[in-house]
Amino acid sequence: MKKETVLELQNQAAEYFKKAGITITPEEHKSIEVADFGLNDVYAIGLESIVYVNTERVCAKEMVLLPRQTCPEHMHPPIGSYIGKEETFRCRYGQVYLYVEGEPSAEIQAVIPPNGKEYFTVFHEIILCAGEQYTLLPETKHWFQAGDMGAVISEFSTQCYDEKDIFTDVRIKRIPDITN
Amino acid sequence: MKKETVLELQNQAAEYFKKAGITITPEEHKSIEVADFGLNDVYAIGLESIVYVNTERVCAKEMVLLPRQTCPEHMHPPIGSYIGKEETFRCRYGQVYLYVEGEPSAEIQAVIPPNGKEYFTVFHEIILCAGEQYTLLPETKHWFQAGDMGAVISEFSTQCYDEKDIFTDVRIKRIPDITN
Repeated sequence: MKKETVLELQNQAAEYFKKAGITITPEEHKSIEVADFGLNDVYAIGLESIVYVNTERVCAKEMVLLPRQTCPEHMHPPIGSYIGKEETFRCRYGQVYLYVEGEPSAEIQAVIPPNGKEYFTVFHEIILCAGEQYTLLPETKHWFQAGDMGAVISEFSTQCYDEKDIFTDVRIKRIPDITN
Repeated sequence: MKKETVLELQNQAAEYFKKAGITITPEEHKSIEVADFGLNDVYAIGLESIVYVNTERVCAKEMVLLPRQTCPEHMHPPIGSYIGKEETFRCRYGQVYLYVEGEPSAEIQAVIPPNGKEYFTVFHEIILCAGEQYTLLPETKHWFQAGDMGAVISEFSTQCYDEKDIFTDVRIKRIPDITN
């Protein structure tokens, strides 16, 4: 990703935090992580987030998805003695279409991104509006997409090792590569 | 505490959530815990909170302090193999005056409640405005008070056992006793 794309998406994410009534510091604005998952299609498959805290015991993040932007399918594996990340998503603004393992829903609200369509394999739908939340246990495959308004989502979890996440799409590189 | 006091404070807390731009569900509104710590002086010493999630591994809450309302001094002890609660407070609205162990601040912004004044013993001041946060390790004595605007605070922590908290004020009963 180009540095200017990152800056542009950081600004867009900051606008969503403002719409959601969430105050962030200027340092946090600069620290907004823009993930394109190495697919170079960030408006379709991407995620903007701020890590508030990530210790050995607790992690909290604030995430933004632009309208119809998708966080691709992945799960959080065990790592040594760590049984894997447990996370609760709480929608703060907009609407989130979340898909987890289980009975596939007859019809889903998300539009599966054409880029890597075959790597979306779980279709049990959970719809979260502002004030609604869902808890995911470790090793559960999941992916999520914002509705047409975009979405802001708080994440409350155990320790986070993004670099260890296992993505269904084998092309994905979780840690962003940013060039000038 | 009388049931009507609880309902009144739940409504006031909900107003602060609204001011902070935080959406809660009608069920969450009804579940707002109003703690008077058994001191029967809830507008001075009290806390309103919603538990979003509290599993064996992660806890997240949203807390409200009315203007100058104080959460009294306490710490989170180890419980068996559990090393104690680690918690991060993130101010979402208003201003919080937080006091922890360490060098006492020369002058403090909080007004120590007359009821149980002698049970406030740590005075290292941390001021949190919206968007600012602080992490407390287990077994650290702390207390906090909202400024004149009141405050809304997100808490991200390990598992929470409120009933095991150790308060400096020996008169305190953490779990509210509500009568009709």
